[in-house]
Amino acid sequence: MKLGEIGEFGLIERLGKMIADSNMLLNSGSNLILGIGDDAAVVNVEHSKQLVTTDTLVENVHFSHDYMSWRDLGWKSMVVNLSDIAAMGGKPTSAVVTLGLDTETSVEDVEELYNGILSASSDYDCAIVGGDIVKSPVTFVTIAMMGSSTNDTTIMQRDTAKPGDLVGVTGFLGCSAAGLQILQSKQNIHDMPNWEHFVRAHLNPLPRLDLVDHLIGSGINTSMDVSDGLAGDLSKLCKASQVGAVINRLDIPMDEFITSSFGEEECFEFALNGGEDYELIFTGPSVQVLNVLKLLGESAAIIGKIVEDSPGNVSVIDQTGTKSRYVSRNGWDHFS
Amino acid sequence: MKLGEIGEFGLIERLGKMIADSNMLLNSGSNLILGIGDDAAVVNVEHSKQLVTTDTLVENVHFSHDYMSWRDLGWKSMVVNLSDIAAMGGKPTSAVVTLGLDTETSVEDVEELYNGILSASSDYDCAIVGGDIVKSPVTFVTIAMMGSSTNDTTIMQRDTAKPGDLVGVTGFLGCSAAGLQILQSKQNIHDMPNWEHFVRAHLNPLPRLDLVDHLIGSGINTSMDVSDGLAGDLSKLCKASQVGAVINRLDIPMDEFITSSFGEEECFEFALNGGEDYELIFTGPSVQVLNVLKLLGESAAIIGKIVEDSPGNVSVIDQTGTKSRYVSRNGWDHFS
Repeated sequence: MKLGEIGEFGLIERLGKMIADSNMLLNSGSNLILGIGDDAAVVNVEHSKQLVTTDTLVENVHFSHDYMSWRDLGWKSMVVNLSDIAAMGGKPTSAVVTLGLDTETSVEDVEELYNGILSASSDYDCAIVGGDIVKSPVTFVTIAMMGSSTNDTTIMQRDTAKPGDLVGVTGFLGCSAAGLQILQSKQNIHDMPNWEHFVRAHLNPLPRLDLVDHLIGSGINTSMDVSDGLAGDLSKLCKASQVGAVINRLDIPMDEFITSSFGEEECFEFALNGGEDYELIFTGPSVQVLNVLKLLGESAAIIGKIVEDSPGNVSVIDQTGTKSRYVSRNGWDHFS
Repeated sequence: MKLGEIGEFGLIERLGKMIADSNMLLNSGSNLILGIGDDAAVVNVEHSKQLVTTDTLVENVHFSHDYMSWRDLGWKSMVVNLSDIAAMGGKPTSAVVTLGLDTETSVEDVEELYNGILSASSDYDCAIVGGDIVKSPVTFVTIAMMGSSTNDTTIMQRDTAKPGDLVGVTGFLGCSAAGLQILQSKQNIHDMPNWEHFVRAHLNPLPRLDLVDHLIGSGINTSMDVSDGLAGDLSKLCKASQVGAVINRLDIPMDEFITSSFGEEECFEFALNGGEDYELIFTGPSVQVLNVLKLLGESAAIIGKIVEDSPGNVSVIDQTGTKSRYVSRNGWDHFS
């Protein structure tokens, strides 16, 4: 059944039921005074620091229907926002979802999209409280998400790194970019070793909300997520903090799948410039960063340090000890 | 200068300065702990009922660059959301802005768009706290807006109308639809009488935040804004409240410009089905509605009453006393 057959309001009615059922099972749903169906949602807010972020995925810019299912699109649209909340050290609370859809889109596909959205909503306790559905020649999903941080809790910003801080990163980098390369290649992807691992990393990333308490508990107050690639994102953090950074290429954490499936240069390219890993970069005095490592074990690594340098300068020391400056390609710059 | 020349991050830097300068002058800016430039914005929130809404304008669906300037697009993108906050009885507090833009868009046009956004931000004290800019083959503007209502203040919902309630509406209806017809017609618009009045109504609508205190102060707790046309929107209000409504065609408020420029049938068509007036429909016991009229004078009118009927049924009594049922065309249904 095409959207044109049931119309905007028919669709909203169907989705509204799915969302209401899902919200009933959430803790965050208990703060919802009025959900979907009125001019605005009404949410009970305690005195707090509220986080607000928004992120969009556009067809043929951020994803292609050729390789991304509607359910994965829904999941990932949530994760890119959840990751921003994690990077600030908050907990997600609620979100509004805007869908831009072509009239020819099938209702079943939109429901699958919402299954992905609600799956992430459920896993990370973030109620969907409203949204909008508009006709558009390209599919796009815009989510605006609210999160909270209690008043006595640190917010992790990106403008607070100081010379002498160690630079840490969570998880492993590069697998999402490897997955994207596989998905976009014309080869039969099943021929690629470990293809499923990489494809999952790209299509179903996980936000590192699980690590927030450990980071903040260790005193970390500088963090951002790796959405555009380690080098570009670290450069942005450094620019915001008016510092530079030196990282060791060999210390960049990469998992056994990527190192066994791709050449060394390719692995580093994926990790440095690939992006969409949704891991967290964090910096802090060594005592704090070492404490994070004690708590997280293999889930975090030290990759370098913050130095006095031109703001945003990131240098990479390679395996021979040669230091080269990262020339900003600005990570993913969507207009260049 | 095209966006492709300065890139996403160059653009964000330019807009960030405009936004920060504008926020400094706002009351709502004082609650902003951390503005644009990090993974999320941080806003100080008091214990309150928070309103959340989102609305999108898509090129060639909701507007055309042929007749809408970038500045007007920015203004209207804010107003469609501000109007939702007004309809709930709240005050706007903050918003995040997502722009979908083609690479060929000029930087000056985007700055003009933001001039429109910031003009509304300033007029209605709603700080812009974040956003996202993405590449898109069609221009779209998605704004997610937060508002607040103190805990002891009524929220105006659309599911609280009761049989016997009078139905009121603020302002005058139909001028926006008349303006759209003029803008889309191939004639020289300067030949149309009062063309500027109608065109302004369409391109620069005003949210009725100025009337919220009077409505709530009079005890009104049922309201929605007229975005899709009086008949369709009243039908939605009635459906949500499980009631019907009867309205008198002759009581629908229309200004002298529309009645002198268009025929009677056309005027009613604009008012009933045109939409985008961003006036408020409200219902309540007669003592409350009469009190609103006393406070607002010509800025409000009684157009009918709520009755027991199939949910959503709206009947219109014409000048001869003949009652006809409004056949829902669902106002603007973007997929039908």
